[in-house]
Amino acid sequence: MNEFALIDTFFKCIPHDRDDVIFGVGDDAACLEIPQGMQLLVSCDTLVADIHFLPSWDAYDIACKAVMVNLSDMAAMAASPCWLTLALTLPEFNADWLQRFSQGLYDSLRPYHVALVGGDMTRGPLSMTLTIHGLVPSGKAVRRGGAKPGDRIFVSGDLGAAALAVAFLNQQELDGNDRAELMQKLLHPKPRIDLNPYLQAFASAAIDISDGLSADLHHLCLSSNAGACITLDAIPVHPLVKKYQHEAIAFALRGGDDYELCFTVPAQQEKKLLTALALAGISCYPIGVIEAEPGLRGKDASGAIVPLSTQGYSHF
Amino acid sequence: MNEFALIDTFFKCIPHDRDDVIFGVGDDAACLEIPQGMQLLVSCDTLVADIHFLPSWDAYDIACKAVMVNLSDMAAMAASPCWLTLALTLPEFNADWLQRFSQGLYDSLRPYHVALVGGDMTRGPLSMTLTIHGLVPSGKAVRRGGAKPGDRIFVSGDLGAAALAVAFLNQQELDGNDRAELMQKLLHPKPRIDLNPYLQAFASAAIDISDGLSADLHHLCLSSNAGACITLDAIPVHPLVKKYQHEAIAFALRGGDDYELCFTVPAQQEKKLLTALALAGISCYPIGVIEAEPGLRGKDASGAIVPLSTQGYSHF
Repeated sequence: MNEFALIDTFFKCIPHDRDDVIFGVGDDAACLEIPQGMQLLVSCDTLVADIHFLPSWDAYDIACKAVMVNLSDMAAMAASPCWLTLALTLPEFNADWLQRFSQGLYDSLRPYHVALVGGDMTRGPLSMTLTIHGLVPSGKAVRRGGAKPGDRIFVSGDLGAAALAVAFLNQQELDGNDRAELMQKLLHPKPRIDLNPYLQAFASAAIDISDGLSADLHHLCLSSNAGACITLDAIPVHPLVKKYQHEAIAFALRGGDDYELCFTVPAQQEKKLLTALALAGISCYPIGVIEAEPGLRGKDASGAIVPLSTQGYSHF
Repeated sequence: MNEFALIDTFFKCIPHDRDDVIFGVGDDAACLEIPQGMQLLVSCDTLVADIHFLPSWDAYDIACKAVMVNLSDMAAMAASPCWLTLALTLPEFNADWLQRFSQGLYDSLRPYHVALVGGDMTRGPLSMTLTIHGLVPSGKAVRRGGAKPGDRIFVSGDLGAAALAVAFLNQQELDGNDRAELMQKLLHPKPRIDLNPYLQAFASAAIDISDGLSADLHHLCLSSNAGACITLDAIPVHPLVKKYQHEAIAFALRGGDDYELCFTVPAQQEKKLLTALALAGISCYPIGVIEAEPGLRGKDASGAIVPLSTQGYSHF
């Protein structure tokens, strides 16, 4: 089967129910309609075998993970994801693998009404690059660089579970239910698209937590020409991290792959945000405050201020 | 140096002079403004080491080739290229390589006023996925599926030189000037963006010739539910293909990587097209006609009709 037949068989069948796709897979490019008053957001992420996932994983899970990582970039900007392109590099033709991968794409894109509109298929070492396109009302994209001293820092959910899953990939000391819960967190992170309206209304800056809270908050601070102080006990640590890690807070600070959001809100907006979130039944956690002084600091249980490492995962 | 510093050093410096880039590299996504009355075209292409290029090539040439291949997809749709994202996977950090690659990006994007607006950088086997975004007046994108029986088939320039360059990569029997000319065709194809207004005005269908004229015309015919008959002597064969290949026409028919365009024009528009092209000093070559009968046929010098193979390069 050549790559054109592969695309027809496994990817053209991923349907879309979007009127704004004038045409998708099957031409030299997809054609899309942008409504007036909206701006286009574009982001791409590559997942490489043995770096971002294990080739032994179910292709269904690999597809889900790849989609969710990309959707999370839209969530970080408070944008609605709309259209995806997929560039897939495969070492060999494997119909079962492609069938599982295609099903994972379908199941992970459908709840978000995201259409697969194009892509490329090449032979080579297993990897994939997804480019996600989203829309936001003009001027409403939330960036990394808008935080001001005094702004409150929030995270959108429990941290550390995905990193714990990675740490325990080859270890057997784990209760089966715990392993299943951790792998779910690693393989099927939930992009926080549900926070879009609250970020658009209240946030001064936002980033998704892919490299670890300390590393990603540091990126946000650098872009904002500011620093931050975190109340260490306020960090929402996943219960299994507390169960299995002595240094649970430090682990949660450094652990990547959670794809929760870290965002900042001007102090005078904090109450309105919390009221709006409570009405929606969504929990976010205030963990600290933006400061003028560069760098990251932590306040421990005794009230002492300690400097925090800002190092996250680096490829090079 | 981590990937964030790499991006700052080698890619953030690629400037753009586009008002429609609200913000580019440095956030979780780029933010772009689409003018009213325009539609967005999106296409991505992956280039894998040892498949699409040799790792020994100058990184400058690799970058140029990657850009041109992507721009060609916009030319095939009659769209103006605007914004690019780059996902680069590198086996190791190599400052010289990145400097050359970055320079190649800069030099190949600038003449087309295309902005590098985002990307990703990961460690792994050398490959890159570029996603190009372009604009076209609403309804003016030229697709593969619009050709009708009776339409005239054109190609936009000489064919076969890039494939000859590939065939001769490891052979020494080539005059140095010829080798340089062929490598120029392979490494620095010129995307036919200059044909945009003529395609928008006159073309019923178009495709870029990446897999070879016969394979790509076949794609166009399949999308158009039609077939084609080509006058074999009318195919514009590159002079060096005639010099080095006995079966020059067959070679030019099968040879990929030229990135000229193949397009169709209703018969009653042919004269207007040729007049407009002549005024602009652009040569395109009528090579045949779309027919209702599926498949590709060639008319040889004696007037005999022979079936043509439609097979092009396939990864699988």
